[in-house]
Formats: sequence, C-alpha cells, structure tokens
Amino acid sequence: MASMTVKQARPLPYTSLAGRSFLKTSDLTPAELTRLVDLAIAQKQGRALVGKPLAGKTGVLVFFNPSLRTRLSMSIAIEQLGGHVQVLDVGSGVWNLEHRQGVVMNGDKTEHVREAIPVIASYADFIGVRCFPGLKDLSDDMQEPMLSAFATLSNKPVINLESSLHHPCQALADMMTVKEAFGGFKGKRVVLAWANHPKSLPMAVPNSFATAAAQCGLDLTIACPPEYVPPAPIMQSLHAQAALGGSRIDVTHDLKAAADGAQVIYAKSWGSPQFYGAPEREQELRKNLTHWCIDDEIMRRTRGGAFMHCLPVRRNVVVTDSVLDGASSIVLQQAENRLHAQKALLSVMFGGKR
Amino acid sequence: MASMTVKQARPLPYTSLAGRSFLKTSDLTPAELTRLVDLAIAQKQGRALVGKPLAGKTGVLVFFNPSLRTRLSMSIAIEQLGGHVQVLDVGSGVWNLEHRQGVVMNGDKTEHVREAIPVIASYADFIGVRCFPGLKDLSDDMQEPMLSAFATLSNKPVINLESSLHHPCQALADMMTVKEAFGGFKGKRVVLAWANHPKSLPMAVPNSFATAAAQCGLDLTIACPPEYVPPAPIMQSLHAQAALGGSRIDVTHDLKAAADGAQVIYAKSWGSPQFYGAPEREQELRKNLTHWCIDDEIMRRTRGGAFMHCLPVRRNVVVTDSVLDGASSIVLQQAENRLHAQKALLSVMFGGKR
Amino acid sequence: MASMTVKQARPLPYTSLAGRSFLKTSDLTPAELTRLVDLAIAQKQGRALVGKPLAGKTGVLVFFNPSLRTRLSMSIAIEQLGGHVQVLDVGSGVWNLEHRQGVVMNGDKTEHVREAIPVIASYADFIGVRCFPGLKDLSDDMQEPMLSAFATLSNKPVINLESSLHHPCQALADMMTVKEAFGGFKGKRVVLAWANHPKSLPMAVPNSFATAAAQCGLDLTIACPPEYVPPAPIMQSLHAQAALGGSRIDVTHDLKAAADGAQVIYAKSWGSPQFYGAPEREQELRKNLTHWCIDDEIMRRTRGGAFMHCLPVRRNVVVTDSVLDGASSIVLQQAENRLHAQKALLSVMFGGKR
Repeated sequence: MASMTVKQARPLPYTSLAGRSFLKTSDLTPAELTRLVDLAIAQKQGRALVGKPLAGKTGVLVFFNPSLRTRLSMSIAIEQLGGHVQVLDVGSGVWNLEHRQGVVMNGDKTEHVREAIPVIASYADFIGVRCFPGLKDLSDDMQEPMLSAFATLSNKPVINLESSLHHPCQALADMMTVKEAFGGFKGKRVVLAWANHPKSLPMAVPNSFATAAAQCGLDLTIACPPEYVPPAPIMQSLHAQAALGGSRIDVTHDLKAAADGAQVIYAKSWGSPQFYGAPEREQELRKNLTHWCIDDEIMRRTRGGAFMHCLPVRRNVVVTDSVLDGASSIVLQQAENRLHAQKALLSVMFGGKR
Repeated sequence: MASMTVKQARPLPYTSLAGRSFLKTSDLTPAELTRLVDLAIAQKQGRALVGKPLAGKTGVLVFFNPSLRTRLSMSIAIEQLGGHVQVLDVGSGVWNLEHRQGVVMNGDKTEHVREAIPVIASYADFIGVRCFPGLKDLSDDMQEPMLSAFATLSNKPVINLESSLHHPCQALADMMTVKEAFGGFKGKRVVLAWANHPKSLPMAVPNSFATAAAQCGLDLTIACPPEYVPPAPIMQSLHAQAALGGSRIDVTHDLKAAADGAQVIYAKSWGSPQFYGAPEREQELRKNLTHWCIDDEIMRRTRGGAFMHCLPVRRNVVVTDSVLDGASSIVLQQAENRLHAQKALLSVMFGGKR
Repeated sequence: MASMTVKQARPLPYTSLAGRSFLKTSDLTPAELTRLVDLAIAQKQGRALVGKPLAGKTGVLVFFNPSLRTRLSMSIAIEQLGGHVQVLDVGSGVWNLEHRQGVVMNGDKTEHVREAIPVIASYADFIGVRCFPGLKDLSDDMQEPMLSAFATLSNKPVINLESSLHHPCQALADMMTVKEAFGGFKGKRVVLAWANHPKSLPMAVPNSFATAAAQCGLDLTIACPPEYVPPAPIMQSLHAQAALGGSRIDVTHDLKAAADGAQVIYAKSWGSPQFYGAPEREQELRKNLTHWCIDDEIMRRTRGGAFMHCLPVRRNVVVTDSVLDGASSIVLQQAENRLHAQKALLSVMFGGKR
C-alpha cells in the first residue's frame, strides 16, 4: 500500500507491470492504462526513448491459432527492443497439448501443459500466448482454461495475445488510435457495432475494446441485434470498469441511431450467446442480419467519425469496400499501432525502474 | 536524366536500386545488371566490403508456396547484413488472403491483400514475396495479380522471391555462376533445355534465366518440343532484352544440335502454353517426351560445357544421376550463389549512396 | 596420439569436438563426455564463461518431425551464444526430400538430399537434424539413412537432434541432471524402465540414455517385458560402452525388483523389436502391459530415488499424475538442462581452442 502511494506520486509509475503478466487491460488501473497509451504515442512520435530493454532476453510466442498482425508485430517489437523471439505453432511442427486435469493421455494429445508450459518458461524470459475459445461451451470458455494454465504454470511473465475473452494488446492499439484521432477520450463516444460474418466468432476483441474504452472514460454504445447482447458476466464487468473510468455504457439494437454523432464506429462480429456451441443454428439467424454491415450511410450519420476494425475483416460482409477504402477508415493506422503499443508494453514490463 | 549521367560516370552506380522494388531483372539496365553480378562476385571473393547495411531493419518474407533455397538464403543474407527477418507462411499459421477486387468475402479467405499488404509494410522495411501462378488461366497469370498487389499496395520496397513469370534472384545467381565459370558473357552460348517432369510447372525460372542471359549478352538457344515454345508475349520481351543486351536468341526443337559446342546446358521443365490449365491432357503429351532428360550424351556434345539447374531437380527425370553427380554439374555452386547474389542485391538496395 | 596425451593433461581439453559432428555420445570418450557434462553444469551455475562463440555464425535446424524442447532449446542456445538460427520444417513450407539412391524421382518427393544437404551446408556454419525412424524395417532404421546422408553430404558439422537410434543432446542433459541430483556417477544405479504407450515409439532416447549412462560409469538396469529387450546390436554396443565407462548393465523383466534402492527411475516407452513394422499386432500385446506405468509404489521402492523422463510424457499411461507432480520428479530440471547442455556443446564445438 505504501508503495502504491509512492507510485502514484511519481511521473512514470509503470513499475506495476514490471515482471508481471499482462492478461487483460483491467489488470491495470485506468490511470495506468491511459499512461501506457500515452507512452506508446510518445514512443511512436520519437518523444520517448525506447532503447534495447530486451537485450539478452528471449520471448517465446505460442500460437494455438493463426495470426498475421499479432505474430508479426509482436515478433518485430521484441527484436526492435533488442530481444530474441521464438514462435511455436502448436499442432504444426510442435506437439499437440492437453490441458485437462487427471486425464489418461492415450489419445491424440502428446504432451500436457503441466510439462510444456514450465519447460517453455525455463527457456524464455517471457511467454506470449494466443488461444482462441473452443466455442462449444460458454461457461468453459469464460474460465479461460488455456490462458489460466499459462498464467498459473509459468514462472515468467505471460502476455495474452488473444484468449477466449481478451485481446488486450489489440485494445492498447485501439485506445492509442482513438487518442491519436481525437486528441483525448473524455466526451467522445464510440460505437461497438456488431456485424454479420460467415462464422460465429469469439468475443475477445469486442470485450477488450469495450473494457478499455470504459477504463479510458470513453462513452460506449454497443449496437447489436437482440440475440447478440454480450453475456451477463461480461456486461457486469464492463459496467464495473465504466464506473472506475468514469464512462457510460448503453446497449441498443438500432445501429443507425447509435451512429448519430459518434466519433468511432468499431465494427466487429461475435457469436450469439444464445446459440453458443450451435453455429449451424446461428447461421439461420444470420441469414436475416446481412444489413448489419457498415456502409456509407452509417458513416455519414457520424458526421466525421472514424471507422475502426481489428482486422482481418471480411469486405462487403462486415463493411463495404467504399467505407474501408474511404477517408473515414483508420484501420491501417490501428493495425500499425499494434507495433507501437506492444513496444511500449514491453518497455514497461522489462525496462526496469522508471 | 542529369543524375543518370552522373551515375553512369561513377564506379559503383547502384543507387538506381536504392529504395526501389526488385521485381524482375529487366527492372535494371543491362549495365546495372552486370555490375550487380560483378559486385556479388567481388563480395563472395572478399574483394568488396559488405558490412551491416541492414542494421536495425526488418525484412518480412511472405511465402504462398514452399521454398528451401530461397527461404534459407534470403533469411541468412538478411541476418548476415545485420537485419532481422520474419517469415510468414500464408495458409499455415497465417490467414488465407483474398486478392480479387470487389468480392463479397463470405468464403474461405479471411483477409484481403488490401489490408494485409499495407499492414505488413507498416511493420517492415522491405517485403519479399513468393507467389506461384494459379496455372489455370494463362492471361490471368501473365498479369501477376499477387505480385502486382504487393508492388502497388506496399509503400516499402518489394523483392520478388518467385512470381508467375519471374524469379529474378535466381537469375542473378545464374548469371553470377556463368560468369564465374566462363569469365564473361560475350561470345558464350547457353542452352535453355526443356525437360520432362511429373507436373506442369511455371515459367518463372526459365523466363528469368532467358531474360537475364539476353540482358547480359549471352547467346541463348531455347531447345524444347514444339508444344513448349514460350507464349508470344514472353518471346517478344526476350527479343527486346536481347536487343538491349546485344545477344541473340534461337528456338529449336533439336536438343542434340542445340548442345553442340554450348557453354551451358540449363535444364528446366515448364508447362505447355497449349495445355495451360489442363495438366491431365498435358500428361498424355509428356508420356512421349521422356527422352527430354539431360544425359551424358548431351553433355559430351557441349565439349566441356556446364550443367545448370535452379533446384530442386527430379533426378533421372530432368537429368540423370550421372550428369548431376559428374564434373560438369555446377548446380551446387549455382545454389550457393543465391546467398551471395541476394547479399549484393540487399547491400545495393539498402547500402545508401555508393 | 601425441595430441591426445597433451589434451588429457590440459584443464579444458574439449578441442576434440571442434569442427566435428556430434551424432552420438559414443563419438566422445567417457572422459570427454563427463567433462562436457561438467562444463554444462559449470556454465549453468555461472562458474564458466560462455561468451558469444557463435557470433556471425548461422545454425540451420532441419526437422522432419515435431519438436518442442529440442527446437526451442537449441534455437535459444544458438541465439544466446550470439549466433543466428534458421529452422526448416520438411514437408511444411519446405520441399519433401528423397534420400534413396538411384531412384527415378517421378513421385511426391521434390528434392533429393544429395542436393538439399550440400546446399544447406553452403549457407550454414552447422546443421542440426531431427529425423525419426520409419519404424517399418528394423535393419533399415539401424542404418540411420537420413542422419548418415547429412553426415556424409554436409561439409559443415552436423548435430543430431534425434535420429533413429540416437538423441545425444537429450543424453547430455540426462547425465547433467543425474550429476546435479546425486553429485556423481560412480556407485549410482539408474533403471531404464520400459513403459506402456498408445504408440510404438523409436529407441533413440532409451538407447542414448543407456549409452551415456554406461559411458559415465552409472550402473544400469534395463527393466522391460521380455518382448521389449533391445535388439542384439544395441545391447552389444551398450556392453562395449559399459566396458569403457566401467559400468555394469543388467536386464530384468521385474520392474519392482529393479526399482529397489535405485537412484533413478528413467521411464520411456519403445517399440518391441519382435513386432517392428507391425504396430497393430503390438497393440494386442500392449493391452496386457498397462501395469508398466510408474506409480508411487515403484518410487517408494527406490527409497529417495528420482523420476526422470525426456518429455513429452503421456500422463497416467507412462507415469501417474501423482509421481509426475510429486517431489521425486526431476523432469522439468531435466528439460531445462537441454538448454545448458546444448550451450556447452556448442561452445565446445565452436569456441575455438580452450
């Protein structure tokens, strides 16, 4: 407690992350989060020194799922900070991993995370891990079994590169991009706009965006069909963060009204909690939701608002070519910011006392 | 124009490549190409300093197709010059990419090149890309849709690591190898010898070899069955380069006569333009072409000529064990030269003013 | 011979490995092996300088089979010693390789090792290779066709990362771990305990552990069902090494008796030589061998002995959760030692005169 007081009195109190894992943005206080965003912007602009805080250090990135931006931007971030990076693609050149407790391992999983994770941790200085949810059982996925296994079994810091519920590195880049575009957070309103998609997708990106927006004090409108309102525990958590961050959260099923005067339309698809584990039944529902695609009409309602998406994005399903290729789209800046946000994160985690 | 004059008057005028893409050897003038070959030989022999021109830089290599030599030699070239390298295998751990314009992306392609390429470019200092042709539609493949997308959508230099029609890094190594073996180009004759193969292969390697040979002033004989004469646009382009390079191009269907007194037999299979997109029909034709395999009898006709191939090569289909393991084969030297050629290329692209 | 005398008189006479391949522990004399183990322990404890002996050097690691520990620990070892590492996954992004002599290559193998290996060697300073046995024909596998091809066709040192018969880097880590746990080798007894498994596995790990144990002077008990006694050539080789190392080897089919008072239970499954190439018939046999699983009762018999396994391990098939998670298990230390053992190996191979 004493050290907390001291921290808040100092100009760069990022030591709260030093040597710790980064699993979700709400691991940070609102003040810590916004300061990290500010550091990322300052480093990007060359106003803050970066140096080689990872010199002699190795990050191991473990991917259970595909990745382009995350793989590339995190690998390059590590190398630009002087570190080494190793990438493991589980199930492709690397053994398949079991995470259930107490099982008789006579099936297709060759190794248990209880060995694999401590072994990786013994070679690495930190671990990044991407593991999407199974999308079969909501309460299972809400437990984050694989991320929790890494956090528990690694004695080195773990960075979440997208889990069942969280994609905090994306959210850092998102907040950076909002701040760059609008100069600040207070009084700005962002719309998290559900969009159609050929598949039932996880909630990690929308949840992390909404959480970080709430923490940063952005007003947030979640616009989605009635079947797509996020599960109650997620909504409760969002409201708790909004209370801390001084923001306001609304849920609406009227996308057009939501767009009126908003600063940001953040499009993202996610699966319906009602049809969790039943994607073929959800497909029927989605056939009637093809109008949940961001087009010029929606963007015009914002009166100068920006279009955001984490990428990859399905053109002409989630958003029209016209919006994505138009002046309001800041998705490329948002993607580039992944690199800067992660360099700021790593420099805070490993940069020593500041 | 003024700068061109100055360039031609200076001893190492490679600045024409600085900051530019390298998509095909004919992006260079004959003089620029031969000087680049000379630089590669000089660096290999330790007569030219290499240094660390890529210090602090990152090259991202994007592979849509398998690779051994290219992946390894380009990665190692980058690291030996002080840079970092990241490799993306599209479709394996990385999202599948759509490149068609205006499509509704509700199928199996997750991301569009219009996002993926600028994002990669925002993290990288240069991009290498390998994308083989679809081999379905000749006119489509002649457009080089994926390579063109990279060249257009990246604001960082792009290096072609083999596209539909070109493999310029291979051609650099080929010319280096010819010059090492014969001391020069003028008055030497190389035979591009079509060979049988279990599959219908792209024309990138033979086209780039023939183009570079024409640019360097080598006399070129293309020996192939009548059905395998390269398409008219390729032949026109070759003759245009031969005019610039002061070389002569012949096409013959008589391999034995072509071999008589030649300095180089460069074996390579490629698909018949007549059967483009119909490999099963071409298979019938190939059943009668098994004698298009380079053997000792062909090599004897050269009276001291060298056997070349870009590798990988099908033993006892394209060339006999006896030739490949014999003294006339310089395929290993040719493959090793990939490393040296690419280091010279990179040092010219990123080495600053010379 | 003169140099051998001089070597044995000097404090760090590791030059015997400099510039040579490391294919099996019996490439080293017992004295060389135990000194290498001592060096690894000293480096791990910070009592021996490591430095950057691989500065400017590139290791290429070729994997024909999956790997986690080996891939990661060898890659990180190379980078921590200042070198660059490139990993090739054969058949995934890299051409499939043919190794048979004289074949007409009109099938699914694109490249022959007679080209691929010298080419890799021309780019690399050393090559690591993992190639499991085909498990079809015992005498074929005993010839180590792929490892032999690398050793023969590469003019750069080759490090065996697990072949048909040998996994010497694992054995180095194993001996390191035994020495750390018990302070020495003389008078200690280790049990190589066959274990059940869903698959018929290669003999590389048990053979290398047994060989290194024999070389280091550990007494060795091989406990296995009658059908699983290693093939005669392997037993002969083990006895020859035991004679050199001053150790004693017993074979028993009574696991409990073997465990009595042993210092180490090293569990490992391997295929029955009698059913080589007939895994479905071996499955029948294995149905009655499920009691070959290390449990607390076995460990209690050791009176303070340690449980070892190379990992990955099938929980509750090879060993119970209780043993693996209990105080006697040193498998994580053993896995971590891969990194230290390989750094010691590389520093001896490339560290110049010592």
